[in-house]
Amino acid sequence: MALIVQKYGGTSVGDVERIKNVARRALATQRAGNDVVVVVSAMSGETNRLLKLTQAVTERPDEREQDVVAATGEQVTIGLTALAIQGHGGKARSFTGPQVRILTDSAFSKARIRSIDSGKLRQALERGEIAVVAGFQGEDEEGNITTLGRGGSDTTAVAVAAAIEADACEIYTDVDGVYTTDPNVVPQARKLERISYEEMLELAGAGAKVLQIRSVEFAMKYNVPLWVKSSFTQDPGTLVCPEDPSMEHVVVSGIAYDRNEAKVSVRGVTDKPGVAARLFKPLADANIVVDLIIQNVGQGGYADMSFTVGKTDLPRALEIIRGVSTELGARTVETDDQIAKVSIVGVGMRNHAGVAAKAFDVLAGAGINIEMISTSEIKVSIVIAAKFVELAVRELHSAFGLDKG
Amino acid sequence: MALIVQKYGGTSVGDVERIKNVARRALATQRAGNDVVVVVSAMSGETNRLLKLTQAVTERPDEREQDVVAATGEQVTIGLTALAIQGHGGKARSFTGPQVRILTDSAFSKARIRSIDSGKLRQALERGEIAVVAGFQGEDEEGNITTLGRGGSDTTAVAVAAAIEADACEIYTDVDGVYTTDPNVVPQARKLERISYEEMLELAGAGAKVLQIRSVEFAMKYNVPLWVKSSFTQDPGTLVCPEDPSMEHVVVSGIAYDRNEAKVSVRGVTDKPGVAARLFKPLADANIVVDLIIQNVGQGGYADMSFTVGKTDLPRALEIIRGVSTELGARTVETDDQIAKVSIVGVGMRNHAGVAAKAFDVLAGAGINIEMISTSEIKVSIVIAAKFVELAVRELHSAFGLDKG
Repeated sequence: MALIVQKYGGTSVGDVERIKNVARRALATQRAGNDVVVVVSAMSGETNRLLKLTQAVTERPDEREQDVVAATGEQVTIGLTALAIQGHGGKARSFTGPQVRILTDSAFSKARIRSIDSGKLRQALERGEIAVVAGFQGEDEEGNITTLGRGGSDTTAVAVAAAIEADACEIYTDVDGVYTTDPNVVPQARKLERISYEEMLELAGAGAKVLQIRSVEFAMKYNVPLWVKSSFTQDPGTLVCPEDPSMEHVVVSGIAYDRNEAKVSVRGVTDKPGVAARLFKPLADANIVVDLIIQNVGQGGYADMSFTVGKTDLPRALEIIRGVSTELGARTVETDDQIAKVSIVGVGMRNHAGVAAKAFDVLAGAGINIEMISTSEIKVSIVIAAKFVELAVRELHSAFGLDKG
Repeated sequence: MALIVQKYGGTSVGDVERIKNVARRALATQRAGNDVVVVVSAMSGETNRLLKLTQAVTERPDEREQDVVAATGEQVTIGLTALAIQGHGGKARSFTGPQVRILTDSAFSKARIRSIDSGKLRQALERGEIAVVAGFQGEDEEGNITTLGRGGSDTTAVAVAAAIEADACEIYTDVDGVYTTDPNVVPQARKLERISYEEMLELAGAGAKVLQIRSVEFAMKYNVPLWVKSSFTQDPGTLVCPEDPSMEHVVVSGIAYDRNEAKVSVRGVTDKPGVAARLFKPLADANIVVDLIIQNVGQGGYADMSFTVGKTDLPRALEIIRGVSTELGARTVETDDQIAKVSIVGVGMRNHAGVAAKAFDVLAGAGINIEMISTSEIKVSIVIAAKFVELAVRELHSAFGLDKG
């Protein structure tokens, strides 16, 4: 007998029939002798509908109130899911984030989980109930409703799994696992049987949408075995787990891409200590995440700095950077939102030099110019013009031997 | 400067434009120098949509889970209303029932309010905010979400007004006050400037839909002046308040009707003490409200009992009564759901005999047969065949001098 947390995303609970399907899956898991906690998202389209309502009321909605509205999406799903389980003869009880008590900080619309009280969930399991928990939401110390931001339900699921010391956390989605790259771009993409937390983290950070990055961090931190599965098939899916020695035989595990970043270049900054801090601290203070940063030392004590931010953050980032760069005496601030980031990820890279060099070679061969480069121990990220992204992904996927059969 | 609670029903918050209208009204009240608490219902149609979802999932939805789903309707409205007030330059903060803390019993789908903590609302008012409270909902001692049943937002508004010792509670709806009867049935119906709590209670109990009966009970108990107003006009509306001596000059204040009851007759019951209790206690235990009860003493120690219940409760009531009546040796159990109840209400009746007699006379003159009669100090209720209801209301309205002009 195991304790299993199952998370079903918006597509998996998209209508009443699908919710009944989720109920059957959860019950089958319970009847196989397991304790089951189900975490659900809002029905697909609901969160967008609710956010649009808030934007129809006022142009810049206050995030506290926006969270109050957005959190109702998951609240509807937990009630319906509990009812569906009961309708199939099972016992179930729903819990909102505040009811569980999922305590978060007060960063409305992107709150972070501080702690989870597992008491009520354990009581429900002891009564033989399937506990149905609302993803994406919690409450802060003052009892305000908070949401965790897009994809936050994955984080809820893993955090709940960690809190109740679950044996596994299963993330059900509309794909049946983690692929070597996006099968929409590369039909030859292969499904991975397993992948390490570190690789999954890098893939998620590099734009693969299958799992939310914070949920992988949580899983790694608390060592929660994470399964990515489809709610529409019986496929075993992909296991995200600690690295095991056999994995190192594979140099590259996957290729990810991200079209949602924009590049900002600040040219002619005086090259002295503290300049980077003066540029990036105000961005951090404004909660703008900076991804790649490149500094080129120029001539005569001047440097050029380039960095990428999410496209939606670009207007705010520019406003801040224009203010700071004037103080720093920078020559120009330029932006480019027609870029894409392609990333090659694999734990095997640690022991294999030359992955980056090979990637550059492949792209050069395809006539693709490289604009920025960033490498980590198990990842190489390359910024290129957006129009080349599919070509680059296909070429790299093939060159690193990831194409199937 | 006064402290005013304003309640806006589903029609008044039916879409984004109407929510903005509510925001303007609340702000105008605040800018006139008042502290304002706004209580809102779900957008019109939302509660039905949500309940239909629960019924689509399972035929007999568990009421705890149904409440979890239904409560989201008001949660959406509070967020949007707070945003609309902010969008018009005001300060606002939303509160769900559990956030306020509106503590109820655990009778899901028809919970009763036990207590309201006014602390957070007062803090909001002290900060200059308009507090926007979700009607219809609360939480029980265990933190389960509860709803107060249809029309429960009126009750929330009055209970909040009592808890924070408001100077007035304004109920905004799609009619501009309390009328002598339903203007859809009698075009000559007049709007009342004021009406006593007792009369309003009897009218609400008799089927007038303008205010929920529990809200009037609360207002009377805590002496909260209650205004019924339209959110679409500047009409002063109707004041529901303690009886004042001038009111007694008016013998009859209004005529109400109710088509939602059904009659059950149990014939040939042994006429001995305890029979009524054995019939009605199991109904009460099943939370079925019995309205009129008539007992006819028959011949030879046998009696006939007739009573009315809400039409939706009829199937459950019948099931219970059939079981009990077998034990009691009753001859037959008959039902009739083609009935209507017409009620004549007025505090002036206390000092004027003959209201009932006159009503019987009027109905007889119109050829309408009387099936059941029930009288209280300030009300006469008469059950007739449903098809005669409009005729009866018009005749009585005219005969008691309520027609305008």
